[in-house]
Amino acid sequence: MARALVTLLTDFGTADGYVAEMKGVLATGARDTTILDISHDIPPHDIDAGRLALARYWKRFPEGTIHVAVVDPGVGTARDALAVESQRRYLIGPDNGILSPALLAPGARVVRLSIPSAASATFHGRDVFAPAAVHLALGQAFDALGAPVAEPIVRRTPEPRRAADGSVEGQVVTIDRFGNAITNLLGVRGGMVTAGGRDVPVTHTYADVPPGAAMALVGSSGLLEIAVRDGSAAETLGLTRGAPVRLRAG
Amino acid sequence: MARALVTLLTDFGTADGYVAEMKGVLATGARDTTILDISHDIPPHDIDAGRLALARYWKRFPEGTIHVAVVDPGVGTARDALAVESQRRYLIGPDNGILSPALLAPGARVVRLSIPSAASATFHGRDVFAPAAVHLALGQAFDALGAPVAEPIVRRTPEPRRAADGSVEGQVVTIDRFGNAITNLLGVRGGMVTAGGRDVPVTHTYADVPPGAAMALVGSSGLLEIAVRDGSAAETLGLTRGAPVRLRAG
Amino acid sequence: MARALVTLLTDFGTADGYVAEMKGVLATGARDTTILDISHDIPPHDIDAGRLALARYWKRFPEGTIHVAVVDPGVGTARDALAVESQRRYLIGPDNGILSPALLAPGARVVRLSIPSAASATFHGRDVFAPAAVHLALGQAFDALGAPVAEPIVRRTPEPRRAADGSVEGQVVTIDRFGNAITNLLGVRGGMVTAGGRDVPVTHTYADVPPGAAMALVGSSGLLEIAVRDGSAAETLGLTRGAPVRLRAG
Repeated sequence: MARALVTLLTDFGTADGYVAEMKGVLATGARDTTILDISHDIPPHDIDAGRLALARYWKRFPEGTIHVAVVDPGVGTARDALAVESQRRYLIGPDNGILSPALLAPGARVVRLSIPSAASATFHGRDVFAPAAVHLALGQAFDALGAPVAEPIVRRTPEPRRAADGSVEGQVVTIDRFGNAITNLLGVRGGMVTAGGRDVPVTHTYADVPPGAAMALVGSSGLLEIAVRDGSAAETLGLTRGAPVRLRAG
Repeated sequence: MARALVTLLTDFGTADGYVAEMKGVLATGARDTTILDISHDIPPHDIDAGRLALARYWKRFPEGTIHVAVVDPGVGTARDALAVESQRRYLIGPDNGILSPALLAPGARVVRLSIPSAASATFHGRDVFAPAAVHLALGQAFDALGAPVAEPIVRRTPEPRRAADGSVEGQVVTIDRFGNAITNLLGVRGGMVTAGGRDVPVTHTYADVPPGAAMALVGSSGLLEIAVRDGSAAETLGLTRGAPVRLRAG
Repeated sequence: MARALVTLLTDFGTADGYVAEMKGVLATGARDTTILDISHDIPPHDIDAGRLALARYWKRFPEGTIHVAVVDPGVGTARDALAVESQRRYLIGPDNGILSPALLAPGARVVRLSIPSAASATFHGRDVFAPAAVHLALGQAFDALGAPVAEPIVRRTPEPRRAADGSVEGQVVTIDRFGNAITNLLGVRGGMVTAGGRDVPVTHTYADVPPGAAMALVGSSGLLEIAVRDGSAAETLGLTRGAPVRLRAG
């Protein structure tokens, strides 16, 4: 049998040793598991940043992969702890919307993890989520993890809407490390985008404009991105998360 | 036999390639070893930050785990290089106190690693510590690593002390990524804490106070933490490492 | 057979999920491969920083290791995508000089990866480089990856030159996380260095000067480094990449 595969996404950073404690629980409970870091640099408490990252990778991994995703400002409150089976992958994390990409896929099943009385009220990553990952890594039954949850919390990227003049109004969903502004506009094939007060042409590759020029192009997840060749669109155009973007026929 | 497990903690960052060189030595010397990153983001030369992180995770890993911890401002000086066997785990690092959590555990044994004449005077991580980890990962004898060391350097978190009025005077030991201020107060069950000029109640979970309010609660390692719900206690209360904290009966 | 070993160097950071997508492609295509992170913190688009890091580690890993290195400002332009076989290791990345350390080694062979028509114009890491790593991790032939490339782009660290007065003029090649300024001076055995307007003695270890004092010493890759004991040479001496350094007989 292949080794179980557990991925870890958190907003913990690594310097404090919290992620290390989770890895220790995983390595102790399921010794032959492969642990892969996704990121521990999600901005603190930024559930949407975690959700958007998860949306990119969760289905790229093999069937049976166990994805642990912990951005958890509500730890210790009444929020539920979840395990999800979706598209033949498993996901584990708090019930705050971070697991939405998997929850929204057809056929997703969700259960509520029990919180042991000895669990720390501040660190379910170590005491609730990692043990659930161990359970699955050992090949034990998903259904044994807890009772079904009917209505887990779902967070969605806002939908663009069509304006009266035929243009499409969207927004910047996230800014990546290169300063590219990823929007919520999907399936764009051409036209002109207005963002940050500037008109920007929809092109096919970075090579279609000279260095320093702004462009819009379909990014690697199919969403329209505003970019500046060899530069930062976020800086050049003053774009931040939520900034409006308008697409018109070219 | 299970694959050997080596964990790596450094203050090297990753961008310069130093950690990569250590991983190369490990992978070449003990091919089937599992290498797990703990952190490479310890603040440069911050031995205590490394020590406090190590305290959290070293015993969480399975017996036989080899923990390499290198925060080493004294590299190239006369400071010793150590290997430690403690609680059936191994630890490798400089003799500057970073390994204290394992050194202070009952039954710890310590040996001095020899420094090869060809070792770089600036990079024992690659030339001394990683090779010692390879030695152990291959199942070779701990005692063959070097001669016993009688008095390794130990660093301790300061102990709180009881004041004449019955209150307990402690201090902030570290600030985590969320701005929580972790103190040296252990076994607290209630009362009122004064920190940063403010009185803060001891509560059980973040949910016990409204968003933005300060509280103190027992954190995941048993130490009292000062926190602000959905905020940063360090910022809100102006707390830094070493700041005084006073606990009184509630 | 030992598990295949794939290392990953990028300038992607981890928070956006791009690296995670690459890991998903690797884990799906070659399930039993060991994936090791080198760094994802290379400064965005800094090909030389990636090249210098790669120079440190690529030969430290076992024969057969597959090194993926993606700092790729030209993605989507006409730049080639390469696979290299050099010194019995494999390297995969863009044709922009990042792979130079392996290209310059004797006997290096280079092929051009084909770009699938479905590949994203912004993310060859996922759609071109990771699949090539899968190909090699599965033990498939290097030559099947593409046609030979005669003149891949090579970037070199500038060579020092000897001045009329017998001194040697070099420069700062990179600054590491500790503020050490690594120069292009190789094989130095003594003398006096002028850097940042200060004369700095060549010593053997950090211990040879008092805390706070500047020194030059041969670093772990054989290059002369300017350092300040318990401090940052970059800050103290105002050194940045490219700063001139002059070595005279002592």
